[in-house]
Amino acid sequence: MESRIKRIFSNTEEKIDAFLVANSEHPNLDANFSYVSKTQQGVFEHCYIVAYKNGNGTLMTSQLEEPIARKETKLDIVVFKTRDDRKNSLKQALSKVKKLGINGNNLTYRQYKYISKLTKAKIVDISEAFSKTRSIKDKDEIKSISQACKISSKVADEFPDYIKENITEKQLSKKLVELQYNYGADDLAFSPPIVCFGKNSADPHHSPSDRKLKMNEFVLIDFGARYKGYCSDITRTFVFGKPSQKMKEMYDTVLGAQLKTVDIVKSGANGKEIDKVARNMINEKFKDRFIHSLGHEVGLTVHDGGSLSYQKDFELKENMVITIEPGVYIPEIGGVRIEDTVLVKGNKSNILTKSSKELIEL
Amino acid sequence: MESRIKRIFSNTEEKIDAFLVANSEHPNLDANFSYVSKTQQGVFEHCYIVAYKNGNGTLMTSQLEEPIARKETKLDIVVFKTRDDRKNSLKQALSKVKKLGINGNNLTYRQYKYISKLTKAKIVDISEAFSKTRSIKDKDEIKSISQACKISSKVADEFPDYIKENITEKQLSKKLVELQYNYGADDLAFSPPIVCFGKNSADPHHSPSDRKLKMNEFVLIDFGARYKGYCSDITRTFVFGKPSQKMKEMYDTVLGAQLKTVDIVKSGANGKEIDKVARNMINEKFKDRFIHSLGHEVGLTVHDGGSLSYQKDFELKENMVITIEPGVYIPEIGGVRIEDTVLVKGNKSNILTKSSKELIEL
Repeated sequence: MESRIKRIFSNTEEKIDAFLVANSEHPNLDANFSYVSKTQQGVFEHCYIVAYKNGNGTLMTSQLEEPIARKETKLDIVVFKTRDDRKNSLKQALSKVKKLGINGNNLTYRQYKYISKLTKAKIVDISEAFSKTRSIKDKDEIKSISQACKISSKVADEFPDYIKENITEKQLSKKLVELQYNYGADDLAFSPPIVCFGKNSADPHHSPSDRKLKMNEFVLIDFGARYKGYCSDITRTFVFGKPSQKMKEMYDTVLGAQLKTVDIVKSGANGKEIDKVARNMINEKFKDRFIHSLGHEVGLTVHDGGSLSYQKDFELKENMVITIEPGVYIPEIGGVRIEDTVLVKGNKSNILTKSSKELIEL
Repeated sequence: MESRIKRIFSNTEEKIDAFLVANSEHPNLDANFSYVSKTQQGVFEHCYIVAYKNGNGTLMTSQLEEPIARKETKLDIVVFKTRDDRKNSLKQALSKVKKLGINGNNLTYRQYKYISKLTKAKIVDISEAFSKTRSIKDKDEIKSISQACKISSKVADEFPDYIKENITEKQLSKKLVELQYNYGADDLAFSPPIVCFGKNSADPHHSPSDRKLKMNEFVLIDFGARYKGYCSDITRTFVFGKPSQKMKEMYDTVLGAQLKTVDIVKSGANGKEIDKVARNMINEKFKDRFIHSLGHEVGLTVHDGGSLSYQKDFELKENMVITIEPGVYIPEIGGVRIEDTVLVKGNKSNILTKSSKELIEL
């Protein structure tokens, strides 16, 4: 595979001589920084990369991150000590650039103004080129994501053992953290892991609370691991006790939609159409209760790039990694969501999060 | 204390009629979103707040986050279903605005372009007003930060019990995660927690590795908890075994600088001068080995607002929360850093992370 820098250049039609990746402050960092530099450690706040058409790149770093840069990147390194130093090295790196690509999805307004003053280059937004490049994973990336998925799947399989009456959402969320680290996660894909009981599961983004588990309720868990920088994302829904007829119907509907849509994931398919398949299946039984998109790309961030949504065309390509996560949410009862991380590979489904999806009654 | 919205207005000299807080995608979210809406849950990707001079505000949310918005915010709520809906509600909210403040420290270039097309308002960067407002913590914020600091302090005090020969950095980092949740953290201030042994501690941002602990090495830990959204930040350095003369000198120098500078923190002091005090003390013994700023503000994010740096004036004010974290880093030996989270309150030091700073030899 061509170098990441060259691929970014070939994914834009803008005739740029260079592109810039600019980090702001934690947590507002640009994942393209580690993508282009291949650094796995460090924070690199207020650090920059300028990459050129010939494939070369310069990483400008503070002294604070210098040791990590020296160890991890093959880019040229410029170390600045003061703010003036930083300005001068950036000015220098941009001095011959006539047209500069930036990542408009991440560059802040303030950074944009700062850079505009340092260069005469025309600045153009090539955020699509960054996304497009990162969408197609190489072997190492797929290996890391697969490992992150393996970790999460083991956790999901073991998790029912810890579900018991009167335990709280927070206690189980903590358990998800522990288990992921136990199975080798370097970090979490996002935190805290989502655990919701009963009606709380009707909020797709509910934060774990001190609410205690009662009999005959849904237990929804949504979490992910990070391995060598790459994320997994998985959701499972269990029933503690006996599901009502309605709860069973909710589960079966979502599971049906999930299995069906995972099955039609293939290179060349349109995410919009796949979303519609799930949406129609769910709407037939539970009108307007599927209140989010069907899925999203996964990579260095957990929501990484495009999404499978009924609102927008989205072509699936070989070696993309996406989630398939239909759900149904009824405020008076709760919610069911079943999510897998899936690798797009030819015509067959490549589910990376292999843990069981059959309804588990505890 | 006046409402957060009104305080943001009074902290800018720009004659704005309204300001906008715009979230992008996780992890690039604007902490001002939860600050202004007082929501503690939810992600609110691609959601907006428009706030007006009279103190009113409208939160525009997708259906996905609607349940949380309904529970948690007192702002007016507009729910959008589609991208067009979102555009129209934002257009509507901005329709009478002549001058609009934005947070240039967070708003992406792309969001800026999107908004520019929706309004005829003049757009001005009022990021300073956001920082200035968030700098001065109210009672509830101080309570949450204090609780986060209490959790981290307990962890730091207990931590030496887990340090033993051949344990890895990763294993101890995981232990820091576990202990913080055990003591009541809702989440971590940042992850993974930093644990470095020996020479690795010369990298201030080293990520925990499989490196095993040997005798007579530094063990540096840097971590923080999150409680009700607010962060703590603490660093301690231990010696496993016996320190060399040089290691002892490093520790004593950093501790001396830390105690001295914590002591001169007071309302009205200049962070630049305080940084210089620590820098001079360290430079006398270890020239140019203190390679970062003395500290930073802490709040809804762990690096929250301004910093205490020799490069820039920074006035400390009543009810600010900052870190004081001098360090010395020698690649052949390792590093020492000692960090507390400190509340600025009148003339006396208010250390919130109270765990011991005496050199612990294990």
